[in-house]
Amino acid sequence: MEATGRAAREAAQGTVTHRLIAGHLVEGRMEPGGEIALRIDQTLTQDATGTLVMQELEALGLDRVRTEVSVQYVDHNILQSDERNAEDHAFLRSAARRFGLWYSKPGNGVSHPVHMQRFGVPGKTLAGSDSHTCAAGSLGMLALGTGGVEVAMAMAGEPLRIAMPQVWGVRLTGELPPWVSAKDVVLEMLRRHGVKGAVNRVLEYHGPGLGCLTAMDRHVIANMGAELGATTTVFPADEAVRDFLRAEGREEDFTPLVAGPGARYDLTEEIDLSALEPLIARPTSPGNVVPVREVAGEPVHQAVIGSSANPGLRDFAIAAAMAEGRQAAEGVSLDVNPTSRETLQDLTKSGAILALIAAGARVHQAGCLGCIGMGQAPAAGRNSLRTFPRNFPGRSGTEEDAVWLCSPETATASALTGRITDPRAWAEETGMRHPGGELVRRQSRNTTMLQAPLPPGEAARVRLDRGPGISSLPGFEPLPDTLRAPVLLKVGDNVSTDEISPAGARALPYRSDIPRLAEFTFTRIDRAYPRRAADTAGDGGHLVVGGENYGQGSSREHAAITPRYLGLRAVIAKSYARIHWQNLANFGVLALEFADPADYDRIRQGDELRLTGLHAALEEDAEPRVVAVNLTRNEEYPLRHRLPAHRRAAVRAGGVVQALAARERRRAAA
Amino acid sequence: MEATGRAAREAAQGTVTHRLIAGHLVEGRMEPGGEIALRIDQTLTQDATGTLVMQELEALGLDRVRTEVSVQYVDHNILQSDERNAEDHAFLRSAARRFGLWYSKPGNGVSHPVHMQRFGVPGKTLAGSDSHTCAAGSLGMLALGTGGVEVAMAMAGEPLRIAMPQVWGVRLTGELPPWVSAKDVVLEMLRRHGVKGAVNRVLEYHGPGLGCLTAMDRHVIANMGAELGATTTVFPADEAVRDFLRAEGREEDFTPLVAGPGARYDLTEEIDLSALEPLIARPTSPGNVVPVREVAGEPVHQAVIGSSANPGLRDFAIAAAMAEGRQAAEGVSLDVNPTSRETLQDLTKSGAILALIAAGARVHQAGCLGCIGMGQAPAAGRNSLRTFPRNFPGRSGTEEDAVWLCSPETATASALTGRITDPRAWAEETGMRHPGGELVRRQSRNTTMLQAPLPPGEAARVRLDRGPGISSLPGFEPLPDTLRAPVLLKVGDNVSTDEISPAGARALPYRSDIPRLAEFTFTRIDRAYPRRAADTAGDGGHLVVGGENYGQGSSREHAAITPRYLGLRAVIAKSYARIHWQNLANFGVLALEFADPADYDRIRQGDELRLTGLHAALEEDAEPRVVAVNLTRNEEYPLRHRLPAHRRAAVRAGGVVQALAARERRRAAA
Repeated sequence: MEATGRAAREAAQGTVTHRLIAGHLVEGRMEPGGEIALRIDQTLTQDATGTLVMQELEALGLDRVRTEVSVQYVDHNILQSDERNAEDHAFLRSAARRFGLWYSKPGNGVSHPVHMQRFGVPGKTLAGSDSHTCAAGSLGMLALGTGGVEVAMAMAGEPLRIAMPQVWGVRLTGELPPWVSAKDVVLEMLRRHGVKGAVNRVLEYHGPGLGCLTAMDRHVIANMGAELGATTTVFPADEAVRDFLRAEGREEDFTPLVAGPGARYDLTEEIDLSALEPLIARPTSPGNVVPVREVAGEPVHQAVIGSSANPGLRDFAIAAAMAEGRQAAEGVSLDVNPTSRETLQDLTKSGAILALIAAGARVHQAGCLGCIGMGQAPAAGRNSLRTFPRNFPGRSGTEEDAVWLCSPETATASALTGRITDPRAWAEETGMRHPGGELVRRQSRNTTMLQAPLPPGEAARVRLDRGPGISSLPGFEPLPDTLRAPVLLKVGDNVSTDEISPAGARALPYRSDIPRLAEFTFTRIDRAYPRRAADTAGDGGHLVVGGENYGQGSSREHAAITPRYLGLRAVIAKSYARIHWQNLANFGVLALEFADPADYDRIRQGDELRLTGLHAALEEDAEPRVVAVNLTRNEEYPLRHRLPAHRRAAVRAGGVVQALAARERRRAAA
Repeated sequence: MEATGRAAREAAQGTVTHRLIAGHLVEGRMEPGGEIALRIDQTLTQDATGTLVMQELEALGLDRVRTEVSVQYVDHNILQSDERNAEDHAFLRSAARRFGLWYSKPGNGVSHPVHMQRFGVPGKTLAGSDSHTCAAGSLGMLALGTGGVEVAMAMAGEPLRIAMPQVWGVRLTGELPPWVSAKDVVLEMLRRHGVKGAVNRVLEYHGPGLGCLTAMDRHVIANMGAELGATTTVFPADEAVRDFLRAEGREEDFTPLVAGPGARYDLTEEIDLSALEPLIARPTSPGNVVPVREVAGEPVHQAVIGSSANPGLRDFAIAAAMAEGRQAAEGVSLDVNPTSRETLQDLTKSGAILALIAAGARVHQAGCLGCIGMGQAPAAGRNSLRTFPRNFPGRSGTEEDAVWLCSPETATASALTGRITDPRAWAEETGMRHPGGELVRRQSRNTTMLQAPLPPGEAARVRLDRGPGISSLPGFEPLPDTLRAPVLLKVGDNVSTDEISPAGARALPYRSDIPRLAEFTFTRIDRAYPRRAADTAGDGGHLVVGGENYGQGSSREHAAITPRYLGLRAVIAKSYARIHWQNLANFGVLALEFADPADYDRIRQGDELRLTGLHAALEEDAEPRVVAVNLTRNEEYPLRHRLPAHRRAAVRAGGVVQALAARERRRAAA
């Protein structure tokens, strides 16, 4: 194959990233900007995105996942304020049993560190429906956060398509000084480059400075690569990774993977670790980074230790060592979120957790919790210091929040004093020497909350446990060759996915129930849209006409699924936001553009349009042209689509799920 | 004083209850059914009711609480889904500092066991704005749950008025068999007598069977006296209490208090402990009690250990002993809610918590949590076994829930098997012998999350920390001698407090913000009421006319406060529900009744009424008669009120808070 031959040549460039990509390349060329398709070895889903993914697997008619390892985690919605969370958990457990996934029970821990500890293997690819999936780059994996249906496709054995990234080599030199830790390294990257600094790039760390970073330290840095906008972050699989896997009882999973002698980075960067100091991101962006000393003295009302951005034993142990024999300041809530039950076990065995409890910490169940706005919301305008990865406004659950991001050292020193405090200054004041070394031994291997996939025969007999709030994914019809349908809605420029399918307290509870959720579609713009759509659903559906940048904002797939459920077959717009455009294609809605944007003004809501020759325009090599006849006004508008060859069949079939399901059926029949 | 002389004689009856009452009697006779007034030594408030209590203290102009001990706990709203919880916490902390209360930080634990451990003293009275305040009866205290403003008054040194209860002696004989524990004793009482079995009665336990019950076991029994409707539950202060206080490092607080030789109970009951078996309350009432063996085999999806109904170290330790080396069944969520940080510390030191974590338990922060519907909601219709006191429908947060109440032994055996399981049968099957004895040693005394009252000088300088969602209690005017006001609303029979001041997701967030909450007043009946009220507020307010049983349902004080805030000065109804009638008086609304109920039909909404001679009718010894002149229809209606002497001045002053505030001002001026 041409691609493979080329890949072999590209791999000679020898960066860890290039080697990972070359080893999994199925289609495309390794030239930055071009689309490549990668074979996926492992997948990760969490509960907030997982129910839709499992509905997609069900709609695919998939008997069993085709990956090496797929794991369904429950770590997001574990507060359980009403029955819906528990029903999601039961559904996800049954789906994991049905389709051959591992299932990580609520309370087992945050997906990213658990995945790294139990399933991470150097040299493998991982696709996850969570933006911090990239954390597994700490072990020399190519770990990619992506949309739910892409992960479902990966489970079905389909390659994942991404834009070939540039590789940005970040050379680390020196050693971290006392009281400065991994979090400060990635905060330094954010300080230098901001939240868009690594878009379409892979951050690849290398150099002698790696020696002072354990694999879990690297997890901290890889995790927050997402905050730089990176495609992912990659570390080599070196002795530190071997040590990590040995401590997890999985040394046999280790394969070295380091940059070759010919490694050439598209961009380069250098960080002298010994010159770093404690850093902190001010509200309300991970990019607002300043030295802690510049903001020292600000009052603190809450400090939270935990999350996938500081998940290691070390991160809790240093907090415990600092808090030992001391007390959280009087007005401060010190919250500790153990990353996993194994972490909690080791902290308990070592006595570290006792030091934290004695210091006044509120120890919570293992999971994401406040990091994804599930509880722990601070008072408005009161400073909350968190070891989390994100502090976007309102993400804490508090509209007018003041959340800062920092290391466990900075968070703990500040909790103890009640003021933002540079841990170096605190150490000087208290006379505490940095404890150094391995503070708590990794020893508890407890996998009993991880339920292994059932054997195929047994799995096939499992029925999905579907609570009243969990629908199936609706079955969508193939696209007809001719569409004759009314323009049910005409909208202006920059319509967002929030306007198409609102989130918020009213709609969000129904996110696993497509028919119910569909009742909210477009209601922010036009409350009567769902009713009008229902009235025309039997007659071959309807059309929506949009302006520029149609579907901007959140990447939620529901914004394509719910209008499609109501009968939307095609959108005609001036231009599209990229992710929504992709989601429309994935769920079988034809996204057309005006050849002449002025035609937008000639169509009115309610006009009847006829689109013919759709099948021909979706042939793999055909010109992507369609003509719309306005039957109401007796006019014609030339249109085009931008679907690449590999997406055309899917749209014609009614969506990627339908296309793949059809192939599965043919396979089964053959 | 006559009352005291009589009290001395009554005390010779010698029950613990009579002795406690006699020692605190300020007014009234100790004859069942009559009203008595009791001096209150201690108060307890929790965060869900506490913000209003603190607003009342503020409105009173109180400088400092006059009780021996008052404690503000934060244990209810600690999930913090948005900023309001954290703002409540900050407000409560500042109010505790301002008014001389102890403050128990979020994470310190559930009020009832913490209060017992740190502040419980035999022979004292305790008033608490929480229905399980009665748990402190375990130490030989008279502990009374009551409304918020009554607790505020008690803090201001006012006596608490209650109906003199009958004393129900429950004689315990024999010894609890293995795998049967304190929870089964109170479940047996509920099995025999149901949820109204002890209304207007004090349950006083005595007899040789007490010997096998520790003070914390007695807490379990006293706590759930509330579920029988009891005024409270009382145990003697005997050697078990001395042992308890010694273990808490407070032996000096022990005074023996046991029934005298002449003890005569109004009612008697006997329970042979040795004949008890594991019991369980079926959904959806604590009164639906059956033997566990009768329902054995039902599938279990959740088991929760914790709450004030099983708060002791023993309750967690037995669960840990049973779970050691075993696993929660695959589809079961095993949740552990440590009662307090001290409990968590002891469980950590002993290794018990490790056994639970290893068995798959989700260990949560210390607090009430699922017991008051704050998280841990089960899936609809799936059995959840809980060591909690209540299982009313929907209380778990799940509308169609299936919550069962049982002992830790039954909950744990069932969690391990995945089916409702009699722990005796489980022990037989597994060959486990009951461990017996003291499973975990009580050793951690950690009071650093309990913030002591500030010294008076310092306290006086504290400013209340009032977030945007926390109002002051509005200042209400005294009642004028003549009211000329429109009937702004006429309602039918059985109007509930839910219709007067709705709870629910829309209104509840504003429970600390009276002006905002007032906008919901009566809107379930008449959406325009708040606007009409605002229009007439300047002209001397308005009237509401009601039918029979006006103000039934929830005891919430907001149902009196918010219409009063909107200008309601008097209600004229056929009859009143008792608690709302009392709340109206407490907040200065005159509750009048038709002398002739037929007059109800003659008044129409919008009529203008004149009520004269109100002051005279509220003189202490005056006939409680008032005449209403309908100026619109030129008619007269004779009315009456039922206010006892001690409440009349308060209504005239604009409410108890205003009456007491005026007295405080006079005192300060004198």
